[in-house]
Amino acid sequence: MAVYTQVESNDIEALLRRFQLGGLRSFRGIAEGVENSNFLIESDQARYILTLYEKRVDPADLPFFLGLMDHLNAAGIACPLPLRDASGAQLFTLKQRPAALISYLDGVSIESPSAQHCTQLGGALADLHRAQAGFNGRRKNALSLEGWASLVDKTSAAADTVTPGLSGILARERGALEAFWPASGALPEGVIHADLFPDNVFFLKGKLSGIIDFYFACNDALAYDVAICLNAWCFDKTHRFLSDRADALLQGYQAVRALTSAEQAALPMLCRGAAFRFLLTRLYDWLNPAPGALVKPKDPRDYVARLQHFQSASERTL
Amino acid sequence: MAVYTQVESNDIEALLRRFQLGGLRSFRGIAEGVENSNFLIESDQARYILTLYEKRVDPADLPFFLGLMDHLNAAGIACPLPLRDASGAQLFTLKQRPAALISYLDGVSIESPSAQHCTQLGGALADLHRAQAGFNGRRKNALSLEGWASLVDKTSAAADTVTPGLSGILARERGALEAFWPASGALPEGVIHADLFPDNVFFLKGKLSGIIDFYFACNDALAYDVAICLNAWCFDKTHRFLSDRADALLQGYQAVRALTSAEQAALPMLCRGAAFRFLLTRLYDWLNPAPGALVKPKDPRDYVARLQHFQSASERTL
Repeated sequence: MAVYTQVESNDIEALLRRFQLGGLRSFRGIAEGVENSNFLIESDQARYILTLYEKRVDPADLPFFLGLMDHLNAAGIACPLPLRDASGAQLFTLKQRPAALISYLDGVSIESPSAQHCTQLGGALADLHRAQAGFNGRRKNALSLEGWASLVDKTSAAADTVTPGLSGILARERGALEAFWPASGALPEGVIHADLFPDNVFFLKGKLSGIIDFYFACNDALAYDVAICLNAWCFDKTHRFLSDRADALLQGYQAVRALTSAEQAALPMLCRGAAFRFLLTRLYDWLNPAPGALVKPKDPRDYVARLQHFQSASERTL
Repeated sequence: MAVYTQVESNDIEALLRRFQLGGLRSFRGIAEGVENSNFLIESDQARYILTLYEKRVDPADLPFFLGLMDHLNAAGIACPLPLRDASGAQLFTLKQRPAALISYLDGVSIESPSAQHCTQLGGALADLHRAQAGFNGRRKNALSLEGWASLVDKTSAAADTVTPGLSGILARERGALEAFWPASGALPEGVIHADLFPDNVFFLKGKLSGIIDFYFACNDALAYDVAICLNAWCFDKTHRFLSDRADALLQGYQAVRALTSAEQAALPMLCRGAAFRFLLTRLYDWLNPAPGALVKPKDPRDYVARLQHFQSASERTL
């Protein structure tokens, strides 16, 4: 949520010439996304977002992310469209960083979504899952079983300083997920967003107007994306599970794409895995704040509470 | 250059209703100004900047700053206009912070100004100095002789860790300024901007289009504002003084408002004072980084170099 790299008006003017987008009217560094530098640019023609990819994004993944946005746009999903210069290129280098210019989307993210917002979210997620079919990029989910094991190894020693007993929770959950996580191919798979938190979904006058930030997208079980949304959208600020939001989300999703019986059976464990994934990355960032980072690490304990909720829920169904 | 306080779409929607500005289309946290939180808001009607005043601004000064922007707008200066709600109020409270909603200005700041930019800057500064006449707010310059002495006392002990010999430079300059600083009333006075760096001046297609960030404005010698601009606009990145820019700035200024002979005579010492002021505040921030600050302190040595330039220049004229 900050600007890591400064750009100058000369840089932006040169960019607008290269993309043939008219004269520069204004630009501002904006707080958006995680650890990239983003600028809102207004030209004579329209508004754009310039993103400079900082260290968290592997440059080798950028063609996948930009190609996915291209594909989804063509399939009618309201998401940013990466622009092309006269030669057709989307990626360029600015201030020694890979960079892209994408279309600007109207709308605002909702911090406390209602059940109606969740219904729309579910529908949009299912639309996304339909629209990704036919996209031929592939990217492994680095934050699944193997990635979790590695994060447990890196965080266990200090975990109890964050919450007493957390290292034990991590060890037990790692074991449970290694035993019960759906095997590759057991569930319908495709490209998932993998980070569809409320701050990545825009609403305009109450209607879902766009989805942004595809920089965790990867190939995985489609229902895992649903599980991530149940974690991200269906708890209140005291970490209480809100079943009306969850029901609305699932109803919205299934109005577009019905979950198979295997997906429905796997959902409680997928929710545990999603809680574990965000618990582990938050815990790692909490214990290893980047020197000079401009982002305050998010509290991992929010996801301890979610994990415990889904542990209880799944143990009722096992 | 960061967002310190998060606001939510509900907050912004309530604000737009209160100010009768239409429905919310989008808002983003933006990097602007020093240690305030700023948001660019777009409603159905127009764009606005929402500022939440964080700790650096004394709330008691806000009526002066907002009243000044009001006055300058009415006098034809292109600067942000603080909006009023139905009751006429400009200031309100949001997230426990004093806040204001101001009009949005098109344009971009120029990091490497040309002499032509400096001519326009000089003219705009003189326009500002004419336009402030009749504004009846008063605010003492807290960063003049007394403030400098206090900052020297707070920074001397550690100054040599930043640049060897700096504590000696500070002591000598403090003495010189106490001896030669123009007495109150010796020069034409009025409300000055006091922080008119390139990032506070917008240009649109090469024409100066607006001046922002009046949060250091105060009553002082008008020519001191010129001296601040000579420091802020007329050095290159290696801290070399660029006389073509300085000549252009002074020519642009004097085309609108001629400097008196007393002002011209005082200018070399005013330039030393301005260099000293920014050296001292940067040095203080460098030595005392605020815990949790999201802004990297600026290098005080840039202003050691400027001070030394103006010391040599003024000693040729003394």
